[in-house]
Amino acid sequence: MPFIRANEGVVTQVNIFTVEPEKQQELIDLLRESAEFVRSVPGWISASIHRSLDGTRVVNYAQSEDRESAQRVIDALREAGYLERNRALGVASPGLYEVVATIER
Amino acid sequence: MPFIRANEGVVTQVNIFTVEPEKQQELIDLLRESAEFVRSVPGWISASIHRSLDGTRVVNYAQSEDRESAQRVIDALREAGYLERNRALGVASPGLYEVVATIER
Repeated sequence: MPFIRANEGVVTQVNIFTVEPEKQQELIDLLRESAEFVRSVPGWISASIHRSLDGTRVVNYAQSEDRESAQRVIDALREAGYLERNRALGVASPGLYEVVATIER
Repeated sequence: MPFIRANEGVVTQVNIFTVEPEKQQELIDLLRESAEFVRSVPGWISASIHRSLDGTRVVNYAQSEDRESAQRVIDALREAGYLERNRALGVASPGLYEVVATIER
């Protein structure tokens, strides 16, 4: 399973999609398909797809080994038409992050 | 370290803060303090704090055992004044989620 560690150089793309509730499942299915598509891109690590309990959002939490890998993944998704297909289902708000701290019970 | 698993009942609060870059570190420090504060709330699991590479956002990825626990955490943070202190540093966009799929290389 994916895990979260601070200060390891991993770059995480957190992408929050705002959707109409009746399109939430369709977007989840598309993100799952696109994650399978980029599994073979060098440096890609994982994608974890989250649905909001209120039906209005989807979060994709996607890890790559470094910034260059994250960009390769985005480029591959764009070239294959996935970013455009995402846009037909929801409004994306993507960002690239690094983990600075994890706190556990 | 925190890990991500689908279909285990865990409720994840993903909170994206938009910040002025000069306040990013201050917000990170405050979120770290608030995570330490809620460690003892029943059902709280973890918090993972992420800084955007461009300096303009912070993401807190926080796990609780279930929806009731997630609400207890939010209530505890509000009562202790943390939500108000967060607002002084950035604009929060919180949501509650469940993990529906993880895909790994």
